[in-house]
Amino acid sequence: MKIAVVGAGAMGSLFGGLLADAGEDVTLIDVWKEHVDAINARGLRIKGISGDRTIEVNSTTDPGKVGPVDLVIIFVKSYDTAEAARDALPMASDETVFLSLQNGLGNIDKIADAAGKHRIIRGVTAQGSTMMGPGEIYHAGLGPTVIGELDETSTERIKRIGKAFNHAGIHTEISSNIMGALWSKVLVNVGINPLTALTGLRNGELLDHPEIRQVMKRAVEEAMMVAQSLGIEMEFDNPVEKVYEVAEATAANRSSMLQDVERGRKTEIDALNGAIVELGRQIGVDTPVNETLVAAVKGLESVRTGA
Amino acid sequence: MKIAVVGAGAMGSLFGGLLADAGEDVTLIDVWKEHVDAINARGLRIKGISGDRTIEVNSTTDPGKVGPVDLVIIFVKSYDTAEAARDALPMASDETVFLSLQNGLGNIDKIADAAGKHRIIRGVTAQGSTMMGPGEIYHAGLGPTVIGELDETSTERIKRIGKAFNHAGIHTEISSNIMGALWSKVLVNVGINPLTALTGLRNGELLDHPEIRQVMKRAVEEAMMVAQSLGIEMEFDNPVEKVYEVAEATAANRSSMLQDVERGRKTEIDALNGAIVELGRQIGVDTPVNETLVAAVKGLESVRTGA
Repeated sequence: MKIAVVGAGAMGSLFGGLLADAGEDVTLIDVWKEHVDAINARGLRIKGISGDRTIEVNSTTDPGKVGPVDLVIIFVKSYDTAEAARDALPMASDETVFLSLQNGLGNIDKIADAAGKHRIIRGVTAQGSTMMGPGEIYHAGLGPTVIGELDETSTERIKRIGKAFNHAGIHTEISSNIMGALWSKVLVNVGINPLTALTGLRNGELLDHPEIRQVMKRAVEEAMMVAQSLGIEMEFDNPVEKVYEVAEATAANRSSMLQDVERGRKTEIDALNGAIVELGRQIGVDTPVNETLVAAVKGLESVRTGA
Repeated sequence: MKIAVVGAGAMGSLFGGLLADAGEDVTLIDVWKEHVDAINARGLRIKGISGDRTIEVNSTTDPGKVGPVDLVIIFVKSYDTAEAARDALPMASDETVFLSLQNGLGNIDKIADAAGKHRIIRGVTAQGSTMMGPGEIYHAGLGPTVIGELDETSTERIKRIGKAFNHAGIHTEISSNIMGALWSKVLVNVGINPLTALTGLRNGELLDHPEIRQVMKRAVEEAMMVAQSLGIEMEFDNPVEKVYEVAEATAANRSSMLQDVERGRKTEIDALNGAIVELGRQIGVDTPVNETLVAAVKGLESVRTGA
């Protein structure tokens, strides 16, 4: 399969690297020139849980040079999705599938605006990866990946992609409730990420504060109300307990949003709690806790990024 | 009048210093030994808006050594009020008045637990003062001070105190709605302080973010609901507009709560938004925005103070 990965950060490089190592024809596309140059000069180095290796894989900053591909995997941060989807169009034929494995809500709509909804497959992954430097990533976790057609059908194209992923060692299942899987992950992030970003606490430390546990609960309950109004079927019965469990299981982690804030980068708050607020507004569900978290994170972000 | 100021920080030192300079018999009491020693060795230095001067005034770390006084002015941070009131008891006779000029809610109850409610007068001040170092403060603002009996009557003792304050250049009025004055100040702090502390934004910068303006509005509206349920009569008709006005008028300021967080000190969140949440819970008013702000500030505080 000819594959372009748009957004070759830690996760995009991991997926692209593993697929290339399994024989797929992969190009990693990213704006970070040092990373692209390092991969082209010395290969992509993957260390960590799946063993140390150096993988030959094409990389470029220019999607115009790639030519038509069968699969575009979108792995940019959600605030860059609209632009990434537009930039990917020259690589797409009518048969090309756009697979979003990104965090958060709203990415499908942004890709659909550029490429049309019929070309999109959504995925959710619990793989873990960290950028170590140009051309080098650390494969930190081997969690499952699920992918699904938006109309919940099982198609030849999704089976083909699932097969390629599994063949590359990316354990992947095809879901007939991909929106439920996506929202389930979003709910966990909604409960954990902004509170870690605002406080500097590690995931597990959130649970030490009764006031914070209560706010996690309320943030997730608001998101549940929105999800239910939209007819989303969640993967677990008690999302609040699930959020506490994940915080406990990842106790020592600094959430991605906390890391973004600490490094003076934009966060994905708009695609998480911000999407809950916006969807809630559209359907008439009040979300005061999420509104407060979004406002505070945006203010903090503006100070830290100097924007 | 024989006066003890309990909590000789920037504000306590200002009031005590001005009263001593006007001929009152003042003792400044504080746990900060360097400050106490500097005042005893070289006098209290006041610079700023009311002119530069050095004032001879007694200072001690030990309230047990002061002897009976006519007036105890409580100026400690609100989380130290209970202890300060107990420590002040040896200085009190039946005639002694306890005047709290502190920020926030809950201080009256804590002083009443130790000294009895009949001895308490509440005050609110818009004077501004900054600690420059041991024995030295900067008088930054000359705003009005109001004091009032809790039963809204005009008494001889409150007139005596008001006269002494005005004589010392502290412009003071006697209010028959001191709780309204106190809550009016609290509402402004509720809207501004936690959002500055969480984000690092200056007061005026809050207004640049539409999401933050909206959360300021909701935080203040929740507090208004609680105030109305408690029968408090606010000083201004539109508290939300008032909060925006104050943020604008103090645009360049870093709020006291932001300063506390930056210096790794405990904040007064419990006496501000925390009191709104707690009172709301007692009377059945839901306060999700304030709950969220309290939880986030407490988490941040725990990281910054290392508690």
